[in-house]
Amino acid sequence: MDTQFLLVAGSTRTADIEGISAAGADPALMRHTPSADAEILTYGEPVRSPVVPVSPSGCPTPAVVTRAVVEAVGHDLDFDFDFDTLVVDGGLAEPTGAPTVEVDASPGADVREPVAVSDAGAVFAAARRFGAAHPADRLVLAETIPGGTTTAMGVLAALGERRAVSSSLPENPLALKREVVDAGLDASDVEPGALAGQPTKAVRSMGDPVLATVAGLAVGALETETEVLLAGGTQLATAGALVRHAGVEAPLTLATTSFVAADSSAGVRDLVADLDVDLTVTDPGFDIRDDHPAMAAFLRGEAKEGVGMGGALALADEAGVEMGTVRERVVDVYDRVTATEATP
Amino acid sequence: MDTQFLLVAGSTRTADIEGISAAGADPALMRHTPSADAEILTYGEPVRSPVVPVSPSGCPTPAVVTRAVVEAVGHDLDFDFDFDTLVVDGGLAEPTGAPTVEVDASPGADVREPVAVSDAGAVFAAARRFGAAHPADRLVLAETIPGGTTTAMGVLAALGERRAVSSSLPENPLALKREVVDAGLDASDVEPGALAGQPTKAVRSMGDPVLATVAGLAVGALETETEVLLAGGTQLATAGALVRHAGVEAPLTLATTSFVAADSSAGVRDLVADLDVDLTVTDPGFDIRDDHPAMAAFLRGEAKEGVGMGGALALADEAGVEMGTVRERVVDVYDRVTATEATP
Repeated sequence: MDTQFLLVAGSTRTADIEGISAAGADPALMRHTPSADAEILTYGEPVRSPVVPVSPSGCPTPAVVTRAVVEAVGHDLDFDFDFDTLVVDGGLAEPTGAPTVEVDASPGADVREPVAVSDAGAVFAAARRFGAAHPADRLVLAETIPGGTTTAMGVLAALGERRAVSSSLPENPLALKREVVDAGLDASDVEPGALAGQPTKAVRSMGDPVLATVAGLAVGALETETEVLLAGGTQLATAGALVRHAGVEAPLTLATTSFVAADSSAGVRDLVADLDVDLTVTDPGFDIRDDHPAMAAFLRGEAKEGVGMGGALALADEAGVEMGTVRERVVDVYDRVTATEATP
Repeated sequence: MDTQFLLVAGSTRTADIEGISAAGADPALMRHTPSADAEILTYGEPVRSPVVPVSPSGCPTPAVVTRAVVEAVGHDLDFDFDFDTLVVDGGLAEPTGAPTVEVDASPGADVREPVAVSDAGAVFAAARRFGAAHPADRLVLAETIPGGTTTAMGVLAALGERRAVSSSLPENPLALKREVVDAGLDASDVEPGALAGQPTKAVRSMGDPVLATVAGLAVGALETETEVLLAGGTQLATAGALVRHAGVEAPLTLATTSFVAADSSAGVRDLVADLDVDLTVTDPGFDIRDDHPAMAAFLRGEAKEGVGMGGALALADEAGVEMGTVRERVVDVYDRVTATEATP
């Protein structure tokens, strides 16, 4: 099957709220995280971005794991299939050296503003056309956007779905997220559930440009009988909710990591069950290598998912790549990116 | 060797001058040619562009041949090496569905205006940084820009180099090009040779944004000991002239097609000799398949080169792919793109 992995990379000012996200060592560097993730996925190391995304406690970006899978699948000719990766600009705030497809997305505003994504309708429409026109048999959709679980919670609230979201922090700051979302609903003058069946309005009021893009790509693909695999955690589940609220009932699967599945605060199983979305969980077996700093950080509950990590692991499995091979590549990529002195 | 093929795609209003270019069925459609070429290179067919680039007489874009090489090299696992392709936005006038790296280039003005590329210096600098930061061992640089041989002639004139350029038309409209270039020199108040040693000024006055981008990529790569292969005809030779006028003396090779080499009006051999640039000429053997409309058109002297065709053929040779295999793939890609009904 001709499979295209699509990373949608973007930003929301919601990430600037203190304590919301661990997707960067500090708020200023966090703005570069999606641009750097796109470069790591594309080149195996940062190229133009001045930073390697790590959490404040040193957990590397899940882009390291996704890139490890790309290299593991691509470099062994015995496997059953290969896949190409591609980055869609879902509202990047900083330049990236990765090639990007444009859907005219802009950085999102703070979800506590009345309008979070002013061009949600146009972005959704452009992404839908691109998803419909793409020649692949299957699109694997992934995200990188710091603050994205909070905007996902906002969209779930506006749609009237279960407000279940995960976190890149070991302790999910759910109380803070709920407070931010409630402030956003107030500012947008939206009652919980008031935007059911109105996906682009839900994103406009309470979401982020990556959700508008992913949902558009998924709807366009499914309408033209292209398979869609949602590669991620509760943000991608929220994209699935947007697809359902757009009236599209085609089969959908969410492929996530064992770290998201084990996060009881996220409740991803109940969320996908509500949405009639199938769930695939892949465990990369990092416990076998708990001496490695990257794998130890994931085992502590950091990062958990992102940059399509769960979907990439599922593709590795499908291609017949052993998780031991993936782990070896994670070590390689980790060593490479942490050695990088990117050109500012 | 880790090889990256980079297509720089852009536009100049110079292409609107009647009789200058055959890179599109008519001037309105010609504006879509670089965007469509980028899609054919990336996906094997147009995705977002509303048109398959053909000349007024029906010769398909050389993107068909370059893509055929990508598929021939990529699909047989016995070959010595593989290469990735990437598109750089060198001033596109129309949207493309291909992912692009941004160097903040804008469409170029008519070379008869006082300033042809207002941001030539900034574009050159951004491309130079990207060329320096790219992790590949070798960059293969290619172009798609209708009207580009005329702006190349303009730059050669400003630099004081031999004004030798080829054409996508069987009969090179050299008299028209010289007239346009002379008008451009007058409008820019530049004497022939007055901008020797000032490459970005030469592009600003007389060039196009693709030349600024290619020259910047080449200089940045060569400064960081990355090899550069110039994949094309006289436009890429002109990029080589810009590299030399930037004071960079590292080895450079131009890989072109037998069709450019056979074009006595172009004088590419003398041009590269002047610039101390090596020349590789590859003949795809289209005479063996002169019954095929695409190959027959190239044999009539149409198109000749573009989208890195000559460089792609050289890479096929290097990888050990037979030209017969390339020709079979040309038929496949031609059938596919001419059957495409792209989504507008």
